[in-house]
Amino acid sequence: MDRLAINGERLWASLTELGKIGAYTDERTGLVGVNRLALTAADGEGRALVRRWFTEAGLDVRVDRIGNCYGRRRGRRDDAPVLSGSHIDSVPTAGRFDGCLGVLGALECVRVLNERGIETSRPLEIAFFTDEEGARFGTDMLGSAVAVGRLPLERALALRDRDGLSVEDELRKIGFLGSEPERLSPPHAYVECHIEQGPILRAAGRDLGVVTGVQGISWQEVTIVGKSAHAGTTPMELRRDAGVVAARLIVRLQEMALSGRHGEMRATVGAIDPVPGLVNIIPGRVRCTVDLRNPDDAKMAAAEAELAAFLLELEAEHQVKIETRRTAGTPRIHFAPAVQSVIARHMDAAGLSHDDLLSGAGHDAQELASLCPTAMIFVPGEYDGISHNPREYSTPEQCTNGINILLRTLVELAET
Amino acid sequence: MDRLAINGERLWASLTELGKIGAYTDERTGLVGVNRLALTAADGEGRALVRRWFTEAGLDVRVDRIGNCYGRRRGRRDDAPVLSGSHIDSVPTAGRFDGCLGVLGALECVRVLNERGIETSRPLEIAFFTDEEGARFGTDMLGSAVAVGRLPLERALALRDRDGLSVEDELRKIGFLGSEPERLSPPHAYVECHIEQGPILRAAGRDLGVVTGVQGISWQEVTIVGKSAHAGTTPMELRRDAGVVAARLIVRLQEMALSGRHGEMRATVGAIDPVPGLVNIIPGRVRCTVDLRNPDDAKMAAAEAELAAFLLELEAEHQVKIETRRTAGTPRIHFAPAVQSVIARHMDAAGLSHDDLLSGAGHDAQELASLCPTAMIFVPGEYDGISHNPREYSTPEQCTNGINILLRTLVELAET
Repeated sequence: MDRLAINGERLWASLTELGKIGAYTDERTGLVGVNRLALTAADGEGRALVRRWFTEAGLDVRVDRIGNCYGRRRGRRDDAPVLSGSHIDSVPTAGRFDGCLGVLGALECVRVLNERGIETSRPLEIAFFTDEEGARFGTDMLGSAVAVGRLPLERALALRDRDGLSVEDELRKIGFLGSEPERLSPPHAYVECHIEQGPILRAAGRDLGVVTGVQGISWQEVTIVGKSAHAGTTPMELRRDAGVVAARLIVRLQEMALSGRHGEMRATVGAIDPVPGLVNIIPGRVRCTVDLRNPDDAKMAAAEAELAAFLLELEAEHQVKIETRRTAGTPRIHFAPAVQSVIARHMDAAGLSHDDLLSGAGHDAQELASLCPTAMIFVPGEYDGISHNPREYSTPEQCTNGINILLRTLVELAET
Repeated sequence: MDRLAINGERLWASLTELGKIGAYTDERTGLVGVNRLALTAADGEGRALVRRWFTEAGLDVRVDRIGNCYGRRRGRRDDAPVLSGSHIDSVPTAGRFDGCLGVLGALECVRVLNERGIETSRPLEIAFFTDEEGARFGTDMLGSAVAVGRLPLERALALRDRDGLSVEDELRKIGFLGSEPERLSPPHAYVECHIEQGPILRAAGRDLGVVTGVQGISWQEVTIVGKSAHAGTTPMELRRDAGVVAARLIVRLQEMALSGRHGEMRATVGAIDPVPGLVNIIPGRVRCTVDLRNPDDAKMAAAEAELAAFLLELEAEHQVKIETRRTAGTPRIHFAPAVQSVIARHMDAAGLSHDDLLSGAGHDAQELASLCPTAMIFVPGEYDGISHNPREYSTPEQCTNGINILLRTLVELAET
C-alpha cells in the first residue's frame, strides 16, 4: 500500500523562499542567516507571505488580537479541529528551520490533502503563533500563551522592547493586530513538528524523535549595583566591582550545573552588560540574564533557592545590591502519551528509527498542552544540531521524514 | 610676607564654565556629568573656549600637528620654558575636574602673574594635550606621547574609533589639526596639578600629595571565540561557552590581585561584550578588556605571564580560541626628586599637610618625564576620590591649595 506522503521538494522550496525574508550574510563566516525578530518589518513580510500561502491553499484564515494566524480546512463534521503549527519569528541570528519547518510542514500537509482530494472527519487547522522566541519583548511563547489563557491579552499587548515600542503598536504597524478572539477553543489535539535544536538524535543515529515533554524553564534578569570608580587609583580592597560579582555568578552557575546535585540542570548567562563598559573604569552596574533548565520541577526549585542564597552571599561579600526579576518561568510539561503512541506507530510503519526525548527548548506546544492532548515530532539537525545560528541545518530528507509523520498523525487524529 | 597666591574664585568660575560644555544629566542619579570625549564636537567647543582664554591672557598660542595646544608667556631670557598643563578631554561619564584643574590652574597662574606684573626669568608655557583619556581611539596620553616622540605622528593620526573615524579627520573637523611641529623641545621642567582620583589622601586627612611617579599600566583586549548554541538544548559538557571563559578570567584576575604574590597589583575588566548577547543563546564570542597596574615592572611582567599561561589553560579546558591584543603599556615612571623637593617645600611653607604617593592613573606628566625633570601635585577628592563619574568633586579650597603650590613651584623653577 502506498502510504500518504508529502511533496518534499515543495516543502523545501517553501522553506527556502521564506528563508529569504530577513536574510543576512554573517560578516565573519560568510554564512547566510535569518533575522525576523518578532513584529519587525521582516517578520511582517514573512507573515504576509505565509498568510497568502494559507489563503492560496483554500484555508479560511483568521488573525486574532495577539496576532496569531490560523488557517482552517473544513472537515466532514464541524467538531473540534486537529491543530498543527509553530512560529515564523526568529532570534536575530537564526537559521531557516526553527519554527518554520512546523508551520510550512503543516501547510504542506494541507496542500497534499487538497491535491489528493482527501477529506478528514474533523477540521484541520494550521497556525503560526506570535513571538515564540521572546528575543525582542522578553517573554517567549507570547502568542500561544495568550491563546491558551495563561497570559492576559492586555499584559501581552503592553509589553515593550528596549526602545519602548509596544507589542500592540508593533502588531498594528505590520498589519497583524487582528480582531478575532484571542482565546482558542480547545482543539481535539495539537501536534507540532520542530527541529531538535540539539545534538542528541544525530549523535544516536536516529531518524526522528518523539517528544515526551519539555523541561522546566526559568529566566531571570539580574542587576548588580556596585560602584564605578577609576581602575588605576582604586585599591582592590575598596572596590565594589559589579563585573566581578557577575563573573562569580557565572562561575557558580556553571559549577551547579556540572555538579549533578541539581539533576540534569542546564545554566546559561547569555547577556552581560556592564556600565559604563570602559577599559579603565570599574563596572558600577551589570545587568545579566540567567537561563535555567531542568526536567525536574523540584530540582529546579532547589537550584533557584541555591542561586538566591548565593546572591545574598555576594551582596554581603562585595557590598553590592542585587535585584532579580523573573522574565519567564514554565514548569516541566508532560505531553500526551496517546498522541505520542500515534506518532511512534507511524514512524515504525515507515521504517524510521526513533527515540523518545525531552525537549530542551521551549515550544508553543507546551502552551497548547494545557488545552488539549499534545505531542511533538523532532527532526535531527546537522553540526551537533546547532540552532539560533546561521549554521542551523536539517537535510531535505530529514525534513520530509518529519512532515510525512506529521501528515499521517494529523489524518489519523482527525478521524477520531 | 604675603605669599604669591591665586584668585580661587576665578579658578572655580573657570572650572564651572568649562564644565558646562558637554554637560549631561545622569538619568538614574540626577547628577550632572560631563562628556567631552576626545575630538567630538563638545571637545572642540571646550578647546575653543580654553584657547580663547589663553589668547585673552596674552599668551602666544600655537597648535601642533596632533592638536596639542600651547600658550607661551615670555620670560626675561629666551631659555627653555617651564611647562605646565594637562588635558580637557574626558571619558563619556566624567566630572569637571579630571585634567581641567591642571589646565585651568596653569592658566590661573598666568593670570595672577599678569595682574601682578611679575616677570619670570624663563618663559612659562601652559598646555592642553590631545586625548589623554584614550576612551575613544584606544590609546591614552595620545597627544603627549606624540609630543615627546614615543608615538609616531603618522600612527597617532591614523588611529580610528569604533565607527572608523580617524584622529586626523576628527582633528580637522573640530579645527585643531595644527601646523606647528609636534615634537616638543625639552622644557626646563614640567609640573602638573591633577586630582588624585583615588581615596588615599582623603583617608589620610592630607591637604595635598606630592606624586613620586606613576605605576606601570598594561592594557589588553581579549577575544574569546567559542561556539554559540541554544541554551535549552545543548548539554553542559558539549558547550564552548565564551561567557564562562570570560567569567573565569575575571575571577582569576581578582584572585591574582588580592593574593599579594604580584605586589600592589590592581586588575580590572571594565568592558565585557558577549555575542550575540541574548538570554537563551550560549555566547559564542566575548570581547573583554584587561587593565593591569603595578608599581613594580618585574611584578607586572610576572602577572602578565601568569595571565598568559592561564589563558592557555582556559583554551584547552573549554575548547575555545583566545586572542590578545596589547592596547597600551607603560612601565613604572619615576618623577624627578628635585622637582618633588621644590613642591614639598612650598607645601610646608604654606602649612599644608602632604604625603608622597604614587599615581594609580596615567597622566600626561609620565610622557613629559622622558623629556625633562617632571613632577605632579595631587589634590584630594571627596567621596573616596571617585573620578570618571559625575560624583567627582574636590572643594574650592582643595583646588586653590593645589594651584597655589603649582604657582609658587612654577615661579621658583622659572628662576633657575
